[in-house]
Amino acid sequence: MSHKLFLLPGDGIGPEIMKEVKAIIDWMNANLDVSFETDDGLVGGSAYDAYGVAISEEDMAKAMAADAVIFGAVGGPKWASVPYEARPEAALLRLRKDLGLFANLRPALVYPALADSSSLKKELVEGLDILIVRELTGGVYFGEPKEIVTLEDGQKRAIDTQLYTTSEIERITRVAFDLAKTRSNRVASAEKHNVMKSGLLWKEVVTKLGAKEYPDTPLEHVLADNCAMQLVRRPKQFDVILCDNLFGDILSDVAAMLTGSLGMLPSASLGAPDEKTGKRKAMYEPVHGSAPDIAGKGIANPIAMIASFSMALRYSFEMGKEADMIDKAIATVLEKGLRTGDIAKEGDTVVTTSQMGAAVLEEIKAL
Amino acid sequence: MSHKLFLLPGDGIGPEIMKEVKAIIDWMNANLDVSFETDDGLVGGSAYDAYGVAISEEDMAKAMAADAVIFGAVGGPKWASVPYEARPEAALLRLRKDLGLFANLRPALVYPALADSSSLKKELVEGLDILIVRELTGGVYFGEPKEIVTLEDGQKRAIDTQLYTTSEIERITRVAFDLAKTRSNRVASAEKHNVMKSGLLWKEVVTKLGAKEYPDTPLEHVLADNCAMQLVRRPKQFDVILCDNLFGDILSDVAAMLTGSLGMLPSASLGAPDEKTGKRKAMYEPVHGSAPDIAGKGIANPIAMIASFSMALRYSFEMGKEADMIDKAIATVLEKGLRTGDIAKEGDTVVTTSQMGAAVLEEIKAL
Ligand SMILES: CC(C)[C@H](C(=O)O)[C@@H](O)C(=O)O
Ligand SMILES: CC(C)[C@H](C(=O)O)[C@@H](O)C(=O)O
Repeated sequence: MSHKLFLLPGDGIGPEIMKEVKAIIDWMNANLDVSFETDDGLVGGSAYDAYGVAISEEDMAKAMAADAVIFGAVGGPKWASVPYEARPEAALLRLRKDLGLFANLRPALVYPALADSSSLKKELVEGLDILIVRELTGGVYFGEPKEIVTLEDGQKRAIDTQLYTTSEIERITRVAFDLAKTRSNRVASAEKHNVMKSGLLWKEVVTKLGAKEYPDTPLEHVLADNCAMQLVRRPKQFDVILCDNLFGDILSDVAAMLTGSLGMLPSASLGAPDEKTGKRKAMYEPVHGSAPDIAGKGIANPIAMIASFSMALRYSFEMGKEADMIDKAIATVLEKGLRTGDIAKEGDTVVTTSQMGAAVLEEIKAL
Repeated sequence: MSHKLFLLPGDGIGPEIMKEVKAIIDWMNANLDVSFETDDGLVGGSAYDAYGVAISEEDMAKAMAADAVIFGAVGGPKWASVPYEARPEAALLRLRKDLGLFANLRPALVYPALADSSSLKKELVEGLDILIVRELTGGVYFGEPKEIVTLEDGQKRAIDTQLYTTSEIERITRVAFDLAKTRSNRVASAEKHNVMKSGLLWKEVVTKLGAKEYPDTPLEHVLADNCAMQLVRRPKQFDVILCDNLFGDILSDVAAMLTGSLGMLPSASLGAPDEKTGKRKAMYEPVHGSAPDIAGKGIANPIAMIASFSMALRYSFEMGKEADMIDKAIATVLEKGLRTGDIAKEGDTVVTTSQMGAAVLEEIKAL
């Protein structure tokens, strides 16, 4: 069976790291019983330069038709003053919304070989393995009204609207609990029910659904501010953290930074299963940005991008075995001491993007 | 001249730590050329137990009439299921709103004697001295509509509204820049202009005002998620962080936790200067909560509460010299090795709340 992958390398280091994923795809097509069909599009600043928009309608249509979108990174100082609707991030938000990618999975994993590189003391992060499950198509990101109006006295007033319905909360809650069952089976739900009505509804819905459908999975409620604190204080207390779009944005960045390996972390954004085919729309993307300062130098770390492709195999193509192979290969090259600049310490030999990509592929072949 | 202090010890450890502030006030009244008049009220769970509300109208009136409110802490499991409007936090939100306390100052300071107790590696936090300036009476905390409605199909929908106007942003921005000038003279403004219209307006207003009124203070814009990350990665890059109510809630908790001394951190919440008298309404409060698990045991750390009183001297009473005395006394007792349980390490002799309070007072006397 052939799987359609739509690749959106984007800006900055995006194209360089995507190249390493392509090499793995080519090898899989040639050597495994699988066939990936790939197509490329433009997104972010590069789409703006070509078409004057953050993503063209043609590329949006291709993203909609694909089995999975593999996304690099967007943005950079070059596009700091393009019109607001054409800013690179607009493409990301539109892809999430139009593809209905409500479930954002952000693992924060400390690779044993890198436990030293966290800002936190080693004993606090060694073995850390958290999964942030973030709602991605609701909340203050998309609620209307969302506007700036000029008042009579010349002042401006800005409005954003945080909106959540029962069913939006229920579906992301199920994703979190289902994933918890494949892990340490604990869910912490983060909100601000003491201040926000959406937090109050969030807590109520998660509590009810948890008790009814997942009675064997311990559920804890934690205020979002306290959750951020606890992530710094004692991160290993968490397994799955469930949160809304805005809290998820911040909490997942804190969790990612704890690992000390931002260039290593992948993410998956999933839609609801199609009623007929059971297939979910999906997009896979590294957590890091486009790193314009090092773009074009061939020194970026491709691991987060490769690990994102591994998540695609796992969540879009039921290729858990192959995903495990990639994850194992990554861990192995790290154990062998290969380091791109971002994760190198004094005395380490630093490898290039393509050397790192090739090394991972070699390990995959050897498995 | 006599200053009116309204003391709201609140719940949990609140009354215990407030007692240590009272001892300092008594000593000041007896020995310095100052006269504080104090009155006590009930707030949070203890007000609920007495009156069925989070704060009585009588106590609200006293808070309005005071020169400064000294607030302990509120909440605890005992009041987990009181009606939403009477929850302990409601008192805090009402005090902030009715007193117009739009400027929340939260220093995150690493005491040299405690640089070891942070989760972060010592070199990353040694000497850390950040001030978070958080807008406190606007944003999603108070914007309307703020409600949960039941839809036709039985689903519920929750709405919170993030609202900011030019003038709201301007006044908090001035506070941040003015304070920066008394410190390292750098402001980082955190928002999400890439997603939120309020962030877009925030950035625009801060940029304009900074350039016009504070051209000599370097201003940096940082996305709130990245700010949270950078606080973990390299916190010493920041001096003053300026942010809205909700981001400030989370970022200040992260910053506080970095110091490893949550029981040590004070805060000030200030209103606008009165047009006639120039006086600001103000409330001072420790950053930590009511710690119900250790309440009544006499082991809580009173330092954050005492340091909050020191902020009152500085910001409400132009008693910077006396505030410095208290701050110095705190640093000295720590250097001498006194530790309450929360900051004690193996081998340390642990002192009680009143021993710690008394030791700080002794140092004040000796100055
Ligand atoms: C780039 C931005 C729009 C985006 C977000 O806020 O969701 C990013 O921070 C993320 O977390 O993927
Ligand atoms: C208790 C709660 C309402 C409050 C807030 O969210 O502002 C607290 O977290 C704080 O930061 O003072």
